[in-house]
Amino acid sequence: MLADNSQPESVTLTEVGLRDGIQIENRRIPTGMKLELIEALVAAGLKSLQITAFVHPDKVPQMADAEELLSRIHLHAGVEFTGLVLNQNGVTRAQAAGLQNVEISVSASDTHSRKNAGLSLEQARNLSVEMVMRAKEAGLHVKAGIQCAFGCVYEGPVPASRIRDMAAAYVQAGADALALADTTGMATPVSVADLLATIGPVAGNLPLSLHLHDTRGLGLVNLMKALEFGVTRFDTSFGGMGGCPFVPGAAGNIATEDTVHLLSSLGIETGIDIEKVAAISRTMGDFFGKPLPGKLYNLRVNRPKAED
Amino acid sequence: MLADNSQPESVTLTEVGLRDGIQIENRRIPTGMKLELIEALVAAGLKSLQITAFVHPDKVPQMADAEELLSRIHLHAGVEFTGLVLNQNGVTRAQAAGLQNVEISVSASDTHSRKNAGLSLEQARNLSVEMVMRAKEAGLHVKAGIQCAFGCVYEGPVPASRIRDMAAAYVQAGADALALADTTGMATPVSVADLLATIGPVAGNLPLSLHLHDTRGLGLVNLMKALEFGVTRFDTSFGGMGGCPFVPGAAGNIATEDTVHLLSSLGIETGIDIEKVAAISRTMGDFFGKPLPGKLYNLRVNRPKAED
Repeated sequence: MLADNSQPESVTLTEVGLRDGIQIENRRIPTGMKLELIEALVAAGLKSLQITAFVHPDKVPQMADAEELLSRIHLHAGVEFTGLVLNQNGVTRAQAAGLQNVEISVSASDTHSRKNAGLSLEQARNLSVEMVMRAKEAGLHVKAGIQCAFGCVYEGPVPASRIRDMAAAYVQAGADALALADTTGMATPVSVADLLATIGPVAGNLPLSLHLHDTRGLGLVNLMKALEFGVTRFDTSFGGMGGCPFVPGAAGNIATEDTVHLLSSLGIETGIDIEKVAAISRTMGDFFGKPLPGKLYNLRVNRPKAED
Repeated sequence: MLADNSQPESVTLTEVGLRDGIQIENRRIPTGMKLELIEALVAAGLKSLQITAFVHPDKVPQMADAEELLSRIHLHAGVEFTGLVLNQNGVTRAQAAGLQNVEISVSASDTHSRKNAGLSLEQARNLSVEMVMRAKEAGLHVKAGIQCAFGCVYEGPVPASRIRDMAAAYVQAGADALALADTTGMATPVSVADLLATIGPVAGNLPLSLHLHDTRGLGLVNLMKALEFGVTRFDTSFGGMGGCPFVPGAAGNIATEDTVHLLSSLGIETGIDIEKVAAISRTMGDFFGKPLPGKLYNLRVNRPKAED
């Protein structure tokens, strides 16, 4: 991809609050409440939502109701629901649950992969390519994602060439879209530019989305850089929820409403109503009994007092 | 000022944590602890620090020890200490306390000015020009600042031409430097570009600094835009402290350590040690018994667990 000075007319945000945003929270959200949240998010203008993950319920109890959620979900024309899958069993479960869109994701870090999935990088990569092929055979729309694409807390920076090769394998396996995840918020404008320039020839015309975390405060700065490279798809979560339970308020995804505010200020359309998302964030902050990392969501109830 | 693709080799950050960062906190910091904080910040590489304000002690009790602080401060070669003054009495006090550098600041919003200073915009502007002249006569180095330069929660956007005219009056009155404050975090990359392009011809070669708040999550995005316009001076505060007591964690200044992280990733030198500032932020978070808005400061003690 090449940087230029143009900017897109519109950007698509995929709301991942119901997956990445809540997956590490101990307080379980009842399935009925998840369904209400989905309706509220759709009413707020979200057209793409990652709503669950087909992972082991003991490892991620918050996602244990994936099948029930899918069985009760209300479909909307023009709204895409997707689920995260990390192994073959996940693909099978997603298909059986009637999901049309899956995101298959593996880590670009050997250490991270071994810790999180019990697989070496090589094993994980081979498995994921197989998963993409299996999912495509099953008729699913497949977004193939790479975690820790911008670095890893265990291994530091990950070579862009490694990400490019993983993406190439995904493309060859038939992936419909690609995703690069800054899992632990290590991306910088420079590494975003480097990786996007490197991966461009491989991605070709496939839709490419970025999954950015604000762990080190650079989430929206990195989004700005990605816009320069023509990226028009980003994962966001209401209130900036997400990330690690051991770093309170510090590791969430970029916040949906804050991102819409930025894009709107640039004249870029998202179709998303900031106030409606902010209201959802306030509800979830109350539900979990804590302030969320996002900035904009609580300004409406507590207007800032003007002072220097 | 004109935007170009070059970037500065170095940037000067003025640490305002001891003024803007703590001014609204109810728990008083003893003068001795402020002196220790100043030493720690200087040891962390800060060369410019706004350490107090000469304002009415009933209005801002945290700043009531301005004279005592100045009488006990340890001077360092190459390190600039400055104080905020909002009226003639403040200028007189700062001079009597032996301060060499003052920042004189008025609001560009009529409503904000009336609420905070009891003066109309016209009165405040005339007063501030008089203050600049008086301070210059007293031999002080004067930075002349404009609050709410990027908009006001009461009045919305402020015309760039109004800021330009205020700046021109300051320049004519003999100001040594100019400052634009996004007091309530309303700036966007577009308004930053607009204002900097408008004010450029007036500012000429005078040093121009930006005081950015992260109230709506755009603090560092706005800084990036300002860098494009050649701005190399920014106010920051440890841990992103500052702002409004009624919007917890939502309205602080851009965080010193997060800003250094961003600039460092771009290859821009600040001379500031991130870990040392982060340690100060952790101390202050503990002192005030709350998480601070900054992102980076608590990552060292709680390394993020890698997950998507």
